[in-house]
Amino acid sequence: MEKLKPRTLSGFMELLPAPQQQMERMMEILRKTYSLYGFTPLDTPVIEASEVLLAKGGGETEKQIYRFTKGDADLSLRFDLTVPLAKYVALHYNELSFPFRRYQIGKVYRGERAQRGRFREFYQADIDVIGDGKLDITNEAEIPSIIYQTFTALGLKRFEIRVNNRKILNGFYAMQGLTERSGDIMRTVDKLDKIGTEKVKTCLMEDCGLTSAQSDEIMKFIAIAGSKEQVLASLEGYRGQNELFDQGLDELTSVTKYLSAFGVPDENFAVDLTIARGLDYYTGTVYETTLLDHPEIGSVCSGGRYDNLAAYYTDKQLPGVGISIGLTRLFYVLGEQGLLNPDLPTAPADALILPMTENLAPAISLATALRAAGIRTQLYTEAKKFKAKISYADKLSIPYVLFLGDDEIAKNQVACKDMTSGEQLTASVEETITRIQSGLTLRNSGAVILEK
Amino acid sequence: MEKLKPRTLSGFMELLPAPQQQMERMMEILRKTYSLYGFTPLDTPVIEASEVLLAKGGGETEKQIYRFTKGDADLSLRFDLTVPLAKYVALHYNELSFPFRRYQIGKVYRGERAQRGRFREFYQADIDVIGDGKLDITNEAEIPSIIYQTFTALGLKRFEIRVNNRKILNGFYAMQGLTERSGDIMRTVDKLDKIGTEKVKTCLMEDCGLTSAQSDEIMKFIAIAGSKEQVLASLEGYRGQNELFDQGLDELTSVTKYLSAFGVPDENFAVDLTIARGLDYYTGTVYETTLLDHPEIGSVCSGGRYDNLAAYYTDKQLPGVGISIGLTRLFYVLGEQGLLNPDLPTAPADALILPMTENLAPAISLATALRAAGIRTQLYTEAKKFKAKISYADKLSIPYVLFLGDDEIAKNQVACKDMTSGEQLTASVEETITRIQSGLTLRNSGAVILEK
Repeated sequence: MEKLKPRTLSGFMELLPAPQQQMERMMEILRKTYSLYGFTPLDTPVIEASEVLLAKGGGETEKQIYRFTKGDADLSLRFDLTVPLAKYVALHYNELSFPFRRYQIGKVYRGERAQRGRFREFYQADIDVIGDGKLDITNEAEIPSIIYQTFTALGLKRFEIRVNNRKILNGFYAMQGLTERSGDIMRTVDKLDKIGTEKVKTCLMEDCGLTSAQSDEIMKFIAIAGSKEQVLASLEGYRGQNELFDQGLDELTSVTKYLSAFGVPDENFAVDLTIARGLDYYTGTVYETTLLDHPEIGSVCSGGRYDNLAAYYTDKQLPGVGISIGLTRLFYVLGEQGLLNPDLPTAPADALILPMTENLAPAISLATALRAAGIRTQLYTEAKKFKAKISYADKLSIPYVLFLGDDEIAKNQVACKDMTSGEQLTASVEETITRIQSGLTLRNSGAVILEK
Repeated sequence: MEKLKPRTLSGFMELLPAPQQQMERMMEILRKTYSLYGFTPLDTPVIEASEVLLAKGGGETEKQIYRFTKGDADLSLRFDLTVPLAKYVALHYNELSFPFRRYQIGKVYRGERAQRGRFREFYQADIDVIGDGKLDITNEAEIPSIIYQTFTALGLKRFEIRVNNRKILNGFYAMQGLTERSGDIMRTVDKLDKIGTEKVKTCLMEDCGLTSAQSDEIMKFIAIAGSKEQVLASLEGYRGQNELFDQGLDELTSVTKYLSAFGVPDENFAVDLTIARGLDYYTGTVYETTLLDHPEIGSVCSGGRYDNLAAYYTDKQLPGVGISIGLTRLFYVLGEQGLLNPDLPTAPADALILPMTENLAPAISLATALRAAGIRTQLYTEAKKFKAKISYADKLSIPYVLFLGDDEIAKNQVACKDMTSGEQLTASVEETITRIQSGLTLRNSGAVILEK
């Protein structure tokens, strides 16, 4: 028969079993952390009606979207988890209680130009808090602590959560009489990390049409840095000139106020006046998170406050705050940088049982006992040479191999080899289970991400 | 602004938060059970190249497929998890160790005619064991025990795992000189539950063109019933007439031999000569699982042994055995039948903290302490009346509400109300955590599925 060459589409991540186990661990940590903060899991369809998904229309997104027809239906694959959330909340408004806190970890689709490290199918891991009419600022203050807990649970230490407030930026530009050019200015300032101070100033004058004095004012403003107390003190110098600015400064002050009560250490937090987030709908606090040793990756967890989640679907005012982790890209980059802990178990099983007798009943009972004790167990029954069986355990990094021969069965014992140390002990099933369990606890004690 | 009516496509399940929590529990149980048997999690793309996905081509499936172009690419959404597995194993053959045991829980797409309880996007939860060249029969014997453990872990008791062997059927038809009509016959016999004995016999004669004597032979054969020992004994009566039949009988005997060692009780298992499974590629043992009190649902977990997983992609002989649970449909039916345990927590949080002071720091510290103890905690800070706050907890079924006023803070205590019993106790944070933890253990102790 003519064979068809098997292949996976470019831009689609498909992991081998060991890295997949690492990815599963990361997802499990995200689910657990998000749950601890009272977010409920949601799952929405990957396919939506195009008119619903593209209600906002236009932009870069529409070009990238996977859109097609099936019968009479004009369908699209979701390109983020925010638009489906807006639809969900508008659709189920009467059945939800607000503030509505949800997390969603799901695949989204963007037909980007294929290039290394860019994915067309990728996981986003989002949390959002949606209010009905109003939403208290404390929700915005809590977000950095959730980011901090999430990244800490993953094993990261050297990261910084950067916070700004769009009202401060918009208020400041209004003070300078630059409201109408604020979009262009923010996009230019956003390039600061990439192109540097001098280039930004040039762009502000040449591309945004600012005077030298105006550019200087902006450069001075975005140069405000230091501890959160220092930045807030500098910002106080601008107070009283613009209502929106003052409101933004109050909000930023509130967000920073409870940081230590929320357990976010100073070294993992910064007020950064250069960040604005590209998306138009952020209206207040905005967040970015960078890995201090890998600034080239850019922000790995971003989000912010918006005033109107579902304006395209409903008249209800639904303000919210949310963040998103681009999980597939983060996982890819961590792997590339060698930051994934290689010592955590990635084997399909914790124990491999090699029956040495014709009658399999004792080996099956042993497997049942191990599984009842929570030990992931594979019974190996293929007709292979002993060496091939050991090599199988070895290749898969299965940590314990158990041998059950007539001698062991007669004594109600089992021989168990620790594949790392090579140590082999013959003991009762109960003792063997205890030994494996302690070994596994130790092996599983590390974090997923291991910074160098 | 003109509003667009938010909607979710028909045939796409989108759950409210409480049922979504039940669904998550079911998935978690499947992941855990599959892992205990040494299956490794896999995740493959939802989109594949059409030529790869449709290598086998033709049939009902191709009509239902979501197929579209993006740029030059002819793409399709996966319609099951078996074809992507075949591709995966063929593609990564050199990087895998065999037997390769994987589980995958993922969404698949079939553009079926929309009708109640039929889904176009639905989860399948599959396990497969793939051998390289050979695969020992013990793998087929282990499958019923995995089904048994999975369903038991979900809370089901009244179910039956039905097993047959295609070699027995094909061998039997060969004995009758009916090999060429065996496909038609099996499809007719498969309708037995739906149309009854008489109708099947009529169909065998009228549609399959059998003589009355031939039909009688078949009806006699499929009427063989009783305990597994009785069925095997009856089948022994046919031994020696056809090699394939004898081989199938040996396999069936092996599969049933270790059932009790594997912990599968007799009442949850039956040899059923009427099942054949529609799919052409099953070559040996086949499985179906039915809920005894809901036979109308049909099989909720099916699968079998196949000799050649990836024949379209590779010359390697890759025999395997696998089962699949149609999770979305199962969940839907369980809900319809009222079998989902309503007493298990479905709230987004275990505890809701209502701060009663201007300064939120003590409430935030309390939330941090609860979360550190594994209690899913929401801090409620919206400016609402007390009654509205309690009503929020009530609507969401949050089991514990904690009040923190000046008095409690001064005494280093917290007031905690059990929302079910109404009992309110003021105690130290540590005592309160212990009280909540024991309460949660109790609340979480039930099974997801509750048979009546």
